[in-house]
Amino acid sequence: MMKFERKDLLGIEDLSRKEIEFILHTARTLNEVSNRAVKKLPTLRGKTVINLFFESSTRTRTSFEIAGKRLSADVINISKSGSSIEKGENLLDTAKNLEAMGPDIIVCRHSSAGVPWVLAKNLKASVINAGDGAHEHPTQALLDIMTVQDAKGKTDGLNISIVGDIAHSRVARSNIYGFLKMGAKVTVVAPYTMMPHGIEKMGVRVSHQLQEGVRDADVIMMLRIQQERLGLAPFSTLREYSQLYGLNLSVLKNCKKDVVIMHPGPVNRGVEIDAQVADGPYSVILTQVTNGVSVRMALLYLLAGGK
Amino acid sequence: MMKFERKDLLGIEDLSRKEIEFILHTARTLNEVSNRAVKKLPTLRGKTVINLFFESSTRTRTSFEIAGKRLSADVINISKSGSSIEKGENLLDTAKNLEAMGPDIIVCRHSSAGVPWVLAKNLKASVINAGDGAHEHPTQALLDIMTVQDAKGKTDGLNISIVGDIAHSRVARSNIYGFLKMGAKVTVVAPYTMMPHGIEKMGVRVSHQLQEGVRDADVIMMLRIQQERLGLAPFSTLREYSQLYGLNLSVLKNCKKDVVIMHPGPVNRGVEIDAQVADGPYSVILTQVTNGVSVRMALLYLLAGGK
Amino acid sequence: MMKFERKDLLGIEDLSRKEIEFILHTARTLNEVSNRAVKKLPTLRGKTVINLFFESSTRTRTSFEIAGKRLSADVINISKSGSSIEKGENLLDTAKNLEAMGPDIIVCRHSSAGVPWVLAKNLKASVINAGDGAHEHPTQALLDIMTVQDAKGKTDGLNISIVGDIAHSRVARSNIYGFLKMGAKVTVVAPYTMMPHGIEKMGVRVSHQLQEGVRDADVIMMLRIQQERLGLAPFSTLREYSQLYGLNLSVLKNCKKDVVIMHPGPVNRGVEIDAQVADGPYSVILTQVTNGVSVRMALLYLLAGGK
Repeated sequence: MMKFERKDLLGIEDLSRKEIEFILHTARTLNEVSNRAVKKLPTLRGKTVINLFFESSTRTRTSFEIAGKRLSADVINISKSGSSIEKGENLLDTAKNLEAMGPDIIVCRHSSAGVPWVLAKNLKASVINAGDGAHEHPTQALLDIMTVQDAKGKTDGLNISIVGDIAHSRVARSNIYGFLKMGAKVTVVAPYTMMPHGIEKMGVRVSHQLQEGVRDADVIMMLRIQQERLGLAPFSTLREYSQLYGLNLSVLKNCKKDVVIMHPGPVNRGVEIDAQVADGPYSVILTQVTNGVSVRMALLYLLAGGK
Repeated sequence: MMKFERKDLLGIEDLSRKEIEFILHTARTLNEVSNRAVKKLPTLRGKTVINLFFESSTRTRTSFEIAGKRLSADVINISKSGSSIEKGENLLDTAKNLEAMGPDIIVCRHSSAGVPWVLAKNLKASVINAGDGAHEHPTQALLDIMTVQDAKGKTDGLNISIVGDIAHSRVARSNIYGFLKMGAKVTVVAPYTMMPHGIEKMGVRVSHQLQEGVRDADVIMMLRIQQERLGLAPFSTLREYSQLYGLNLSVLKNCKKDVVIMHPGPVNRGVEIDAQVADGPYSVILTQVTNGVSVRMALLYLLAGGK
Repeated sequence: MMKFERKDLLGIEDLSRKEIEFILHTARTLNEVSNRAVKKLPTLRGKTVINLFFESSTRTRTSFEIAGKRLSADVINISKSGSSIEKGENLLDTAKNLEAMGPDIIVCRHSSAGVPWVLAKNLKASVINAGDGAHEHPTQALLDIMTVQDAKGKTDGLNISIVGDIAHSRVARSNIYGFLKMGAKVTVVAPYTMMPHGIEKMGVRVSHQLQEGVRDADVIMMLRIQQERLGLAPFSTLREYSQLYGLNLSVLKNCKKDVVIMHPGPVNRGVEIDAQVADGPYSVILTQVTNGVSVRMALLYLLAGGK
């Protein structure tokens, strides 16, 4: 049996395919727990998990909290508001002070890229990156790979199209790393202003036209449009974006018959994706959420020394 | 033994007297737990309860949280601020996403009437209405009925007077439904602007004069005056409201000698009720709070399949 | 074996040396729990601890929450925002309502001096003062005494210098009471505007000059400068304060070779203390944090009736 040797889970970029497969194998084993009448394992009893969220998030925080509690860990939530950060304390001090209270794992979300690496380097506790700026969101990519495997039975050779604001999306980055490692081919689809320069060097195909970019896709992953960033785009309105890059039934008509539709949520219905598509038979959006709990249980379990 | 067959607890309007009695019987059994040195039952171990509060509330949220924890459930608090709702996600998406994480029960408070019904219809999880707009607040009515039974030994034939802003009060509505089903007679007392049109059709007696409305009462239930609504009333000041509709010792002098005084809290001392009355010998305000924990334990227990 | 006879832990002023020693003895016994792989004792299973924080605080709230959970208590967090306090409820009503839900211990932080005493007098639950205005912060003083004992093996006869805004510091007050009771000599060092009138009557030596005030110190405790109060001081800038009262390596050069440096946090690096000092070999700042969890475990344990 493989053993998980890492102290931290920071990004997909530096994970091996073998490690990804091991995490997902563990997640599938734990998945069963969430379907029992008694959704509880004693595995992390007496372990302390701190959810340190400098950016607000219902779903990711809740997913980690549920994951930790189902494994019997003590889970402590700390969010930006109401924390000493308001008093001007620096980030590393906050973290070192928390560490002095003896947590086993710190789950960190922050608006600046790289913060989880700084914490990991300076703390004895394990650190899980729950999203750092526009950089990485590794647990999202892991749950997405798991969901594709559930739907398609494999990842090798699949065409994955990721559509939306690629330039500002940590979900896109982590998924590009992840799916390429897992043997898939990745196409990124976005208007010029939402496409990072030189992204081809990551090994992806680039498209600026939705229909062309998703025609051969086995999986279409739509990204959330963050309205506050639209001012920077060549689109003056959400409606204009939606007409060119929104996934609707008429675009879907020209796609593969068994294409799978994903979205990391929260969904803007009628903007990047139509309600009929988001709620339609090809959508696995809610399965992604369910798998998120299992992936996070797996990581908490593995980082806390489980075998 | 009766079995509780409902998936959800949404309102008092559609409960039968038998169901109310069964819930309160269960609550009394569980009441004893909160008086033990070890206030804990393993009953809901491995169940996940989500407190989904779109309106802020210390006491109701805390009451449900304590109730869940005393039954060993995993309790997750989600409040409006810091949630994806800020990101413009629609309500049903929020709920479906939470459901995908496998909760057993979702306790929901929302400023719009009907929200818990929408959730209940669309989710497999049990939904408990913790207050929806000016519509219903069923756990409040259940704890109020329990408190009256504790004080009077019965509800049949009692005169219950509810005083205050009847038009905007979910507490009043749920209690009118509840006490009428339990065989009591209900009088509502309010100025014209705080009295809904046609309320007599619910089967209550209407009074616009405090002393007259409470003269024969076995129980007087004072409602909280929400100061932000006073602008709509014919009263320009709290003092004027208080003089006409506030419960003080001089009003109480002309009431039944064994009248019981209730208030759902939080109390505005000196506005709708004087301190001497709120803290006096007839007041059962704190018993209401205590019974609230028991009623919520009972509902969590019954909806999670307890017998 | 001594027994702890108090219902509440409100301040250091009215504790005896024997009581302080007994609390710290218990804390040292529990300290070991936080170093185990399974950081959990069943001692407070079925007890309810409410963290009632009217002022925001990451570290103190988290420390109490971790302490409670490691002893298996049910811990409920209530912070000012999102609570009924917003609805204008008075403090004692809030507390009595919480008490009606059956908590065993209420941990209270409030911006007004004396609030924990009011609660303790009116509630059957045990009350722990987690900081009341500029008055007392007893758990901080207890963890500071514990940390000094760890570093020096004793407190009798030691010279303790406390530097900073003595006038507005609950940490300073509680530590003055505590270290004097423990047989130490205390010097307070501050500019005139940050020094309370007549403080000598507490039994401390007064100094207005940093180097002079810390020359013979075995322990230097730096207080956090709260920038919002600087306007009242004779200093127009933080830089000026820092030059006169900031602890840096050049001040330290003239101190005892084995001096111990403390700070209650959060630290303003470069204001009241330089980074090299805060992170240097004499600093025990993070040990203070670790001891904080143990001291709070001890108090929860003793007040809940542990022996």
